[in-house]
Amino acid sequence: MTATTLLNRKRVLMIPGPVEVSTAVLEQMAGPPTSHVDPNFINEFGEALEMLRTVFQCKDGQPFIIAGSGTLGWDMVAANLVEPGEAALVINTGLFGDRFGEALETYGASVTHVRAPAIGSVPTMDQVAAALRERTYKVMTITHVDTSTGVLIDVPALARVVRTVSPNTLVIVDGVCSVGGEELDMDAAGVDVTLTASQKALGAPPGLSVVMASQRAMSTFKHRVTKPTSYYASWAKWTPIMQAYEARKPSYFATPAVPLVKALHASLKQIVARPMADRTAYHAAVSDLVKRTVTAWGLRLVPQGLDLAAHTMTAVYYPEGVSGAKMLASLAAKGVTIAGGLHPQIATQYFRIGHMGITATHDEELRYVHRTLALLETALREQGYLQDATDSVTDAAVGAARVPASAPVPAPSMALRMRPKL
Amino acid sequence: MTATTLLNRKRVLMIPGPVEVSTAVLEQMAGPPTSHVDPNFINEFGEALEMLRTVFQCKDGQPFIIAGSGTLGWDMVAANLVEPGEAALVINTGLFGDRFGEALETYGASVTHVRAPAIGSVPTMDQVAAALRERTYKVMTITHVDTSTGVLIDVPALARVVRTVSPNTLVIVDGVCSVGGEELDMDAAGVDVTLTASQKALGAPPGLSVVMASQRAMSTFKHRVTKPTSYYASWAKWTPIMQAYEARKPSYFATPAVPLVKALHASLKQIVARPMADRTAYHAAVSDLVKRTVTAWGLRLVPQGLDLAAHTMTAVYYPEGVSGAKMLASLAAKGVTIAGGLHPQIATQYFRIGHMGITATHDEELRYVHRTLALLETALREQGYLQDATDSVTDAAVGAARVPASAPVPAPSMALRMRPKL
Repeated sequence: MTATTLLNRKRVLMIPGPVEVSTAVLEQMAGPPTSHVDPNFINEFGEALEMLRTVFQCKDGQPFIIAGSGTLGWDMVAANLVEPGEAALVINTGLFGDRFGEALETYGASVTHVRAPAIGSVPTMDQVAAALRERTYKVMTITHVDTSTGVLIDVPALARVVRTVSPNTLVIVDGVCSVGGEELDMDAAGVDVTLTASQKALGAPPGLSVVMASQRAMSTFKHRVTKPTSYYASWAKWTPIMQAYEARKPSYFATPAVPLVKALHASLKQIVARPMADRTAYHAAVSDLVKRTVTAWGLRLVPQGLDLAAHTMTAVYYPEGVSGAKMLASLAAKGVTIAGGLHPQIATQYFRIGHMGITATHDEELRYVHRTLALLETALREQGYLQDATDSVTDAAVGAARVPASAPVPAPSMALRMRPKL
Repeated sequence: MTATTLLNRKRVLMIPGPVEVSTAVLEQMAGPPTSHVDPNFINEFGEALEMLRTVFQCKDGQPFIIAGSGTLGWDMVAANLVEPGEAALVINTGLFGDRFGEALETYGASVTHVRAPAIGSVPTMDQVAAALRERTYKVMTITHVDTSTGVLIDVPALARVVRTVSPNTLVIVDGVCSVGGEELDMDAAGVDVTLTASQKALGAPPGLSVVMASQRAMSTFKHRVTKPTSYYASWAKWTPIMQAYEARKPSYFATPAVPLVKALHASLKQIVARPMADRTAYHAAVSDLVKRTVTAWGLRLVPQGLDLAAHTMTAVYYPEGVSGAKMLASLAAKGVTIAGGLHPQIATQYFRIGHMGITATHDEELRYVHRTLALLETALREQGYLQDATDSVTDAAVGAARVPASAPVPAPSMALRMRPKL
């Protein structure tokens, strides 16, 4: 593909969800309406549930696919696993920790936050251990990647602290901006529930809440004294439905979002066709490319250190003197949509690029990332940031980007050097 | 279109939701991913909210479009309008009355049911008035069309009883199987909340909960003493978001199901392009055709009388000696999907045909209904029901079907007599 045809392509969506999706996924969206009890659909729904165990790396887990947004996953945790009055510990690395806490409180939980010392950082393991010693918590929640800050946290290390200090506490991971893009092995790490949404690194359109619960979490649910405190989010209602789909039997509680489930099924098929480790390596390689490039330009990441930075997205402060609104508009005018800030304390000071799903894992879409960086460079130059001399910095960063050796992606010299002329 | 090309068409979905959708709707599903804060999308979301006021006939209402199924609407009513311990009266005409009651109880309501004396019937106005006199109810819920029984209830008459006996009680309508197909003028009838879903007579795919609340309902919500008892279904969270979309401003609480909202927008544009009265007349005409035909064959409707029968769907008992499973399989094998029974007490004894959205309102889709009836006749004959002599009964019923005089649908002699040869 030449630079010219690349630039003639449709608009590119490079925000931290919704993301670009594959042709196979779009085809499912465009198909004729299907009954929610059609045998083919029941089979696809069942297969999707089964494939989720591979993606979440949770061999005996109970998967849920329910019409709704990622937020609904918080309601599921709060309404099914925490009984009114019980305590919840929130490891808070941004806006989404605040909100998960608010969701838990809505259903009667007594919530304590362990907050990162500053935006872009994470609480220390000592802080977490100390909090766990102070009180008996029913659940501890972790935002794997906080979409508002791009901060990544070490889930296995946190889970180890819980196992050591408070082994009965359930470990809950908000994986909305991570599952399918970041390394997460629920079984190995000892995670009890991971919740996510369809429109991020799972590579489908928005509209599905996707949750995986360990057998330990399901056992806690089954032994609760009070009834679940939500109707639509009740596992008492949904568990038999999910089990029926897996048994390839018709069932009904509420009508599923059929085309979205079919789209998710198509994306999951593409995901599980390759090792999960490859998938996370692709995301890491593209993330490295983006971060290496913008830091080479002298921009500063919101996460305070590369080890705290997500691989599914990049959150970057605007350099001094650059108007964020103008910069986003410049990219949008040329066909690439990136996102502004979301964390209320710094919302106008930074921008976010999403690079997950096919934009990280598929050949052509590596060029999407490259196109995004090229337009970003142009936008910065338009405002007088980056002088001619820095051009070579970009090229060097791009040339040095690490890409996994596996087959489906062309060699870095091919994929990453094909920089469109603007 | 000839009978032959008709029979060559894709499978036809004639269940009471999900329904066949228009090409314009499918095109929106197939479009490239769009940001939830894209200015074009914000505008479409805003327009969709505005058009809902026309469809629900609620001039000052507060509309909500939220990722989820119709069931989520029950949670919204229960978690936002009824405070724990308050009383709710459920006018119960089938499975969905039972379940709405269960949803209300989940959020702490004290629920009383006024039950229809038998499956297929409705409670009398005297029964309802007596119940309203016994206790002060915060809300009274009505299932406009019970999808499990096909029973239609007189919403304006019930609302009048409430206004007379207990004017402070909010009138809540579950319009999942009615909005866009049955006559419902919220303002004229004095209905406070109507909830529905995208995949029925609104003519879009499944995955959206669609709710309209009167200003009286919103005022009740604003003056509640306790906080809403759901997070994902909280109007405190969603009202500012819906108002922002209407003001064409970006906002965020949870990521909307972008393609579904675009699809709903496309369907609503087609709906409001014509008077709502025409739309309900088309649904009534197609419904009459189906009911006239099956009763002419000697089959018995589940609703006990035509005045109690929905116009969006038809629920029919299998005649004696006919295997339901075989009958449904016969239609499915020939490309038409209809639904089995859903009400647990009679599930195996009846079937359901959905005829809403484009299958009721668009030219070609009237032929879908006709094709469905023709295949149904074949299926009955395959099992020895309907002898040769009854053929003329079908023709007579079809010929006599009443269709509204408005332009877009061809004259009945054209549209309804074009019976495919099997």
